[in-house]
Amino acid sequence: MTVHVALVHHPVRNREGEEIATSVTNIDVHDLARSCRTYGVENFWIVTPITAQHAIIERILSHWSSGEGRRRVPSRWEALSRVRLAKSVAEVKELTQVDRTWATAADPRGNSVLSLDAAKTQLKEDRSTLLLFGTGHGLADDLVAGCEALLPPIQAGDYNHLSVRAATAIILDRLFARDRA
Amino acid sequence: MTVHVALVHHPVRNREGEEIATSVTNIDVHDLARSCRTYGVENFWIVTPITAQHAIIERILSHWSSGEGRRRVPSRWEALSRVRLAKSVAEVKELTQVDRTWATAADPRGNSVLSLDAAKTQLKEDRSTLLLFGTGHGLADDLVAGCEALLPPIQAGDYNHLSVRAATAIILDRLFARDRA
Repeated sequence: MTVHVALVHHPVRNREGEEIATSVTNIDVHDLARSCRTYGVENFWIVTPITAQHAIIERILSHWSSGEGRRRVPSRWEALSRVRLAKSVAEVKELTQVDRTWATAADPRGNSVLSLDAAKTQLKEDRSTLLLFGTGHGLADDLVAGCEALLPPIQAGDYNHLSVRAATAIILDRLFARDRA
Repeated sequence: MTVHVALVHHPVRNREGEEIATSVTNIDVHDLARSCRTYGVENFWIVTPITAQHAIIERILSHWSSGEGRRRVPSRWEALSRVRLAKSVAEVKELTQVDRTWATAADPRGNSVLSLDAAKTQLKEDRSTLLLFGTGHGLADDLVAGCEALLPPIQAGDYNHLSVRAATAIILDRLFARDRA
């Protein structure tokens, strides 16, 4: 099984449910790259149509690939070397040629939900999977509707406002941790 | 059961294993407060002896408790209202009167490790627990040695460099998620 993760900055929702593009943040690049490396994700795709944001990410990466950062913290490049840039989820699918795309959401979306157990079983198949995580107030409905499956929300209690950094870490741990006891 | 979480900025280790104090970051305050609220943690303690850093956190909190932030994102104050400040772990213990303190670490520390299953069972007892998370390169050894137990490292593979934001989210999920399937 090969797994790719994409952090989607467009199309996502704002607080009012409108479709927007969010800005890339340095901390998301680092945290998700580290979580992806920890759980054996092949590539971590940062998706935004705004090419100026691609330039920002490339500048961050160059600090850690060849600059002072690499000398000082070599483990960070091990994670950041898996970062890839794309203008859209469609472009990620084209470049990775994944067999299926699964969405994540904190709230119900009308899609039928794949249980975590079923997801874990299917991930053992010899197929490649792209997992989508949304910034802002989550992936746009059309994007979710176009996926092969939707993973269950984290739903730990009555408060449903984890950061995307925390949510991604939890979902990867739930899907890929070898031993939970 | 009552659970408290503390994010420790001193005493922690730097890359060389020396004891240092790290700086508070805005994103840690937000992310850990949101994760703590999600999993029903009573209070999220930010531990640093540097009082100038307490002032920074108080300023962050005031924006979300009564400022523009509260009006715009009311759910955020629900999480941040659980933040408390302390100068040391000893002060947290004194103020909370917890029955026991458990450390977390990404690397072995000589302490015997409480399995996750045992920890989950013990958390159902009528006792209060303080969970310590370290910034920098982890909690100082003396601090870990003074705890009643050490939780197992996350150990998902050969890469052991999660952000403290990701690690805290994963540990809280492993301990407190109601339903993992």
